[in-house]
Parts: sequence; structure tokens; C-alpha cells
Amino acid sequence: MTRRQEILDTAGDLFQRRGYHATSMREIARNVSLQGSSLYAHIDSKEELLRAIVDEAADAFLMAAAGVDRTLPPPQRMRLLVAGHLQVIRDKLPYATVFFHEWAHLPAELRGDLVARRDAYQAHFRETIVAGARDGSFSVEDPALATLFVLSALNWSYQWLHPEGRLPLEVLAQRYGDMILHALGSAADDTAQEGRQHAA
Amino acid sequence: MTRRQEILDTAGDLFQRRGYHATSMREIARNVSLQGSSLYAHIDSKEELLRAIVDEAADAFLMAAAGVDRTLPPPQRMRLLVAGHLQVIRDKLPYATVFFHEWAHLPAELRGDLVARRDAYQAHFRETIVAGARDGSFSVEDPALATLFVLSALNWSYQWLHPEGRLPLEVLAQRYGDMILHALGSAADDTAQEGRQHAA
Repeated sequence: MTRRQEILDTAGDLFQRRGYHATSMREIARNVSLQGSSLYAHIDSKEELLRAIVDEAADAFLMAAAGVDRTLPPPQRMRLLVAGHLQVIRDKLPYATVFFHEWAHLPAELRGDLVARRDAYQAHFRETIVAGARDGSFSVEDPALATLFVLSALNWSYQWLHPEGRLPLEVLAQRYGDMILHALGSAADDTAQEGRQHAA
Repeated sequence: MTRRQEILDTAGDLFQRRGYHATSMREIARNVSLQGSSLYAHIDSKEELLRAIVDEAADAFLMAAAGVDRTLPPPQRMRLLVAGHLQVIRDKLPYATVFFHEWAHLPAELRGDLVARRDAYQAHFRETIVAGARDGSFSVEDPALATLFVLSALNWSYQWLHPEGRLPLEVLAQRYGDMILHALGSAADDTAQEGRQHAA
């Protein structure tokens, strides 16, 4: 890990636990065993750290969605989008938390860029839902609201998804994907999991 | 509105927009047209304001859930829980936002009490899901995860639910309830809405 990445990880961890405003550069320096003055050799300001963290989180989400093959049938695409989102949350939990919590406190010009990337991310979900409604694999009354619903169920997982949680990520993604496909009125399940659904 | 409630509303609004740590008592006083010293006649500290706001939000959620008749069939109960949650978010958006964002920054002894109330709130959802799985109205593989899923879809709505949004609250609650019941594998819908579900 580079020194810069180590500083980012440390700052992300502190921002997550204590909030951006309540964290000082001195604390960050102490936690990476640097003098405050040496920290400034790597990073110009606390705001630069926040920008870099939020940037990395936004990129991770976008890259996960962009990696999903758009020629797949909508239910499979949705499963991959769900799994990708949960994996980013698990792998980059402090980054995702800071992204979600501090974003409103960013300078306006940076927020504009993030809103554009968030919209691009949402579009992957929305297009998948619309495509599924069109080809009959989903039954969705209100695609805009369904998109918000799916992303809400996914985003909030940063509050309870822990790397050492009860379920392996694949199982979690499978079960979450089942519930999301059902919420979207998925007619025939795309997998052979239907039997398990009734095992409660 | 009492002076105290006005101060709380103002503080909630500022904490929501700027964050708790970034908001000063001076700003709060200015926004309620009080001298800083007069503000202290009503409120002891900024932390007291945060406690009161978070307390009011937690109470609003708990009271909404406690008002749902437990003798109703699980799908109807779930619909009422969903509608109640969305209504609290809409009616008390700044309080809910502060509750969700600042809670990790509260003193430990207050957090313990809030965790207990959050668990009591979650229990209303969990019991409804378990009851529905038992009587066959739901088909749920993992009730614990289904509870987190439903509450995630609901909680995150504070990010996009605005009092003057596109949909009236009743329509939003109906459509959200439809998706949640489907996610829970609700076999026969409890309402006559099934036809509308296929109108996409």
C-alpha cells in the first residue's frame, strides 16, 4: 500500500467513526504515525482527503455497474448489479459511509460532479428495470419508484453489512437478489432457487 | 409552537444541512432571532438539542409502529408499518436525517438507549414477517435478512422523499407496500391492486 493510500484509509476510518468535521488533521497524522507537517507533504488539506475518499467510493460503485454485461437478460443483470453493490459496500465500508454521510457537506462544484456520477449509476439500475418491464421479465408499475426502492434497499446496507457478518457475501447477494427480483414482480425466477424460497 | 419547539426545528434544519459538528449555537440563536445568551435560557447545550431531536425522531417511529393493530393479518400489518414509516420520514425529515446521520456521534450512554428503541422498532417488522411466514401469507427464506431488507428500503427514503414530491404519500405508501409485499413473497396480495401491478 502506498503512503497516500494508507493516509486515505486512516482518514476514511476516522471520518466514518467521528465525522468529517469532528476529525482533525492532527488526529489523522497521529494515526498514520506522521508529524502533522509530514502529512502535509502528502496531502494539501482535510478537504482534499474528503474529496479523494468520496471520489474513490463513487468510482468503485460506477465501475462495478459498468462491468455488468448489458446483453444479459434483465433479471441476471439485476442480480449482478445487486452483488456488485453489496461487494463495494463490504470492501470499502468506510469510504461508502463517508460518501453517504458527508456528501451534503462537500463544496458545491464537487457535489455537481458527484450528482452526475450518482445519476449515471442509478441509470444502470433504471435501464435494467425498464428493459425487464418491456420484455415481460419484470412487472413494475412505477419504474422510477422501483429504481429508488432497489437502490434504497442496497444503499442502507452500509449500516449493517460487516465484512465478518453472519452470511458469506455470495449468500447475502443471492438472498438480497431474490427479494429484489420478487419486489420487481419477476415472473419466472431466473435461477433454480425457487424451491429454497419456500423453505422458511 | 412553543419557543423550545421552534429552537428544536431550527437546530434540526441546520444539523441536517450542515451537520451537527459544523453548526454553532450562535448560528442557531441567529436563526431563531435570539441572542446567544437568551438561547441558553431555553437550552443548556448543543448536545441537549441533539438529544432532544434524536429522541423525538425515535419516539415518532416507535409510536407509529406501536399504533398498528397486531391482530390484523401480516400483509395488512406490513402495509401499515410501511405507511407509518414513510409518513414519519415525510413529516419529520430533518429530525429523521439527524437521527440517521449523527447517531454514531452521540455519547455512549444515550446511544445505548437509542439502540434499545431501534431494536424495539425493528421487532415490530420482524414479528410481522415471522407471523406471515408462519401463516403462509409470506414466503421468506431468511426472516432476519428480510427485516433488514424492508427497513433498508424504508430508511433510505429520507434521501429522496420530499414533502412536495411527485407522488402523494398514500400513493407512495401503496406502491412501496406492493413492492415490499412482493419481496416478502406475499402469495395472494391482500388488496385488489394486483391488476395495477401488471400495468407497467
